[in-house]
Amino acid sequence: MIPFKLSEELIEQIEHLIETNGDVTLLDMMEDFHYADIAEIIHELNLDEATYIIKLLDSEKTSDILTELDEDIREQILGNLSAKEIAEEISELDTDDAADIIAELPDERVNEIIAQIDDKDHARHIVELLRYDEDSAGGLMAKELVKVNENWNVLTCVKEMRRQAENVTRVHSIYVVDNDDKLKGRLSLKDLLTTSTKAEISSVYIPKVDYVTVNDKGEDVARLMSKYDLEAVPVIDELGRLVGRITIDDIVDVIREEAEKDYQLAAGITQDVEADDGVWELTKARLPWLLIGMLGGLGAASIINGFQGAMGTYPELLIFVPLIQGTAGNMGVQSSAIVVQGLANDTIRGEMLHRLIKEFFLALTNGIAIAFVVLLISHFLFETSYLVSATIGIALVTVIIIAAIIGTFVPIFLDKKGIDPAVATGPFITTSNDVFGILIYFTIAKLILGF
Amino acid sequence: MIPFKLSEELIEQIEHLIETNGDVTLLDMMEDFHYADIAEIIHELNLDEATYIIKLLDSEKTSDILTELDEDIREQILGNLSAKEIAEEISELDTDDAADIIAELPDERVNEIIAQIDDKDHARHIVELLRYDEDSAGGLMAKELVKVNENWNVLTCVKEMRRQAENVTRVHSIYVVDNDDKLKGRLSLKDLLTTSTKAEISSVYIPKVDYVTVNDKGEDVARLMSKYDLEAVPVIDELGRLVGRITIDDIVDVIREEAEKDYQLAAGITQDVEADDGVWELTKARLPWLLIGMLGGLGAASIINGFQGAMGTYPELLIFVPLIQGTAGNMGVQSSAIVVQGLANDTIRGEMLHRLIKEFFLALTNGIAIAFVVLLISHFLFETSYLVSATIGIALVTVIIIAAIIGTFVPIFLDKKGIDPAVATGPFITTSNDVFGILIYFTIAKLILGF
Repeated sequence: MIPFKLSEELIEQIEHLIETNGDVTLLDMMEDFHYADIAEIIHELNLDEATYIIKLLDSEKTSDILTELDEDIREQILGNLSAKEIAEEISELDTDDAADIIAELPDERVNEIIAQIDDKDHARHIVELLRYDEDSAGGLMAKELVKVNENWNVLTCVKEMRRQAENVTRVHSIYVVDNDDKLKGRLSLKDLLTTSTKAEISSVYIPKVDYVTVNDKGEDVARLMSKYDLEAVPVIDELGRLVGRITIDDIVDVIREEAEKDYQLAAGITQDVEADDGVWELTKARLPWLLIGMLGGLGAASIINGFQGAMGTYPELLIFVPLIQGTAGNMGVQSSAIVVQGLANDTIRGEMLHRLIKEFFLALTNGIAIAFVVLLISHFLFETSYLVSATIGIALVTVIIIAAIIGTFVPIFLDKKGIDPAVATGPFITTSNDVFGILIYFTIAKLILGF
Repeated sequence: MIPFKLSEELIEQIEHLIETNGDVTLLDMMEDFHYADIAEIIHELNLDEATYIIKLLDSEKTSDILTELDEDIREQILGNLSAKEIAEEISELDTDDAADIIAELPDERVNEIIAQIDDKDHARHIVELLRYDEDSAGGLMAKELVKVNENWNVLTCVKEMRRQAENVTRVHSIYVVDNDDKLKGRLSLKDLLTTSTKAEISSVYIPKVDYVTVNDKGEDVARLMSKYDLEAVPVIDELGRLVGRITIDDIVDVIREEAEKDYQLAAGITQDVEADDGVWELTKARLPWLLIGMLGGLGAASIINGFQGAMGTYPELLIFVPLIQGTAGNMGVQSSAIVVQGLANDTIRGEMLHRLIKEFFLALTNGIAIAFVVLLISHFLFETSYLVSATIGIALVTVIIIAAIIGTFVPIFLDKKGIDPAVATGPFITTSNDVFGILIYFTIAKLILGF
């Protein structure tokens, strides 16, 4: 493949063409680009230039471009378009994309736009989709699908399908419903290609069909579709009626967003920022977590300060504070990440107790290995006394075990309480392990050295 | 949807049936389960029980089950099957899944298995796929596809397609080739449903088609397919000949694995472990990173030890070590995570210098905010002197800025050198920031307080 590559020359060329109203050249140029590439170009232009491009191109192309834009940029561009212009854009789109695009606009504006859509069925479908939560199956589904009645014969069916397929970008499955519109099963495209046209629908269709319900959560739909390798899944309402379908490309986005959210939480970033966002946006996403870390640091400072005695008698204890703290933090993050990932993939099964016991042994063996190396090195490097060495060794092993257990327990606990366990990774777990680690270290030191 | 739920009762029931040779009941029970669910069940059984189930069920079902199993469990089960039995399994599978399953076996065994496959075309295709790197487009593709010659008329084409479609589980696109098998374009299924059967291929096909080359990297294929919303992409060889196709369900796995790998690296876990792996596997994945952290901790200890003077004169400096260290670590991880994610999504563009300047200002403002809070609290809590307060404030801001710049620069640098930038997140960046942070802290303290 020869991937599209955005270059500064290209952007400059486009900006120049906009400035000099070189519409013919621009149209010609954009003709060759995929809408996803034009969306990339638009992200590099200012609002006026972006609006210029959107108004210049055909709504068949711009409607797809709009679906690819970042929400904030799209909202700005829509602000420059009239209700009629937006209605033209979303008339070109499948109902799910159309609903996504106008979902962020104020209700009043949405009503204006809907009123301008010529195809009343399309308008009605979009309004229906706007009712659902955007993270639910209802919010992900499109109304476009091919369905046939179980009581039809194949001739009627094929004729109907041809008509319906006109409105459906990609035909994945043909769904079979009864007279009440209740989902009964499906016909595969392969059946269509390989079965004689004389067969009856009721004798051909596959009655077993995976489906989801409008209120199912998006991530559950993603898990179902990826586990069972589904490319499309029908959506039914509370009465079992077929109301829409979700395709795998929408789910790819859900999977990606879910993974990104977990990753950002693990790194201590509130979701939904990108490298190219402004300083203020990035600060909003990052500062809260930095402040949590800061409070932990001050907590640790208080603890050390509380052991004033040790600071005078055994100043060498203090040089190992970063080691204790860092090791506890790393261990805790590892443990919590494994659990969070297991929860996301639904592979955390069996007894909590069994899991904690395993983690205990893992931490014990790793802890002893690390403590051994540390004592060996510090004996030669810092000439620590035997009692101080014992303190450091015992403290290291204890801190590692406790960090591992907290790291394992907290995400499972949060998950049971219905809180996203991913918040338990990153700064939260690091910070609490820091504080615990130092407290344990000095407590053990006090017990052994008795200051 | 009513999701399949694995329960201990179910496993016990199945184990009991295996023990008592209740084959009829077992077969009846498994009949109702999806292969992905049976794979989950098998993960809970011991090797003998698992082999029993695989030998009991029809190879049409067990072949799919094998594709869903964890590699290590699958390898053990395959060890219990004869070459002929394995050949039967992979005869049922698409070429890509067949190749994946036997790719891990020793060459000699593979040859034995291949020799037992009745369908010689299928065998030849599998051998061809085994040649490619598993992370390349060639390693991801399947040989099953529907292709027609541009010189055919629609009648020949439909007849040929019906024949070919028999071997293809999901027909996404019909590819058009010339007499040399070179990819020319595609026909959509929709065209097939809605176009008159009298049209000529050369007048119907769409000459614009996205494609990848056998040696393209899997993650680049994933990016292309998800950017352009492709459900399948044809693969060509170096001569432009159509050799296979990749479908979106394979790419969903690539995206998931990619995201998981980045996440695990960020948490300091060498890839490919799961919550249910054994203590030894988990230790292998975790201990190296813990040791990196440990070395950092010892490095920090050496630095503090090197500033012996400070420890005597200003012992209060030491209580802020965890704060300095934690804040530097958090800041560095945030910065690197944003860059790593931007690189993964291909949204890191523009000048490196511009990015570093932005990061500098972000760190400066956040640093000042944090330093202000710290100084306020420590003034009342620890009654630090003005000079020590100045030291802490200046050190905090400096350390935060340097952590942010290192966190931004290192992943971009690694990416340019062709190294996975995700290794720069997690313990690596935290540890180096710890050491740098403490060094900077004491150096600034020495400059201001002059011990």
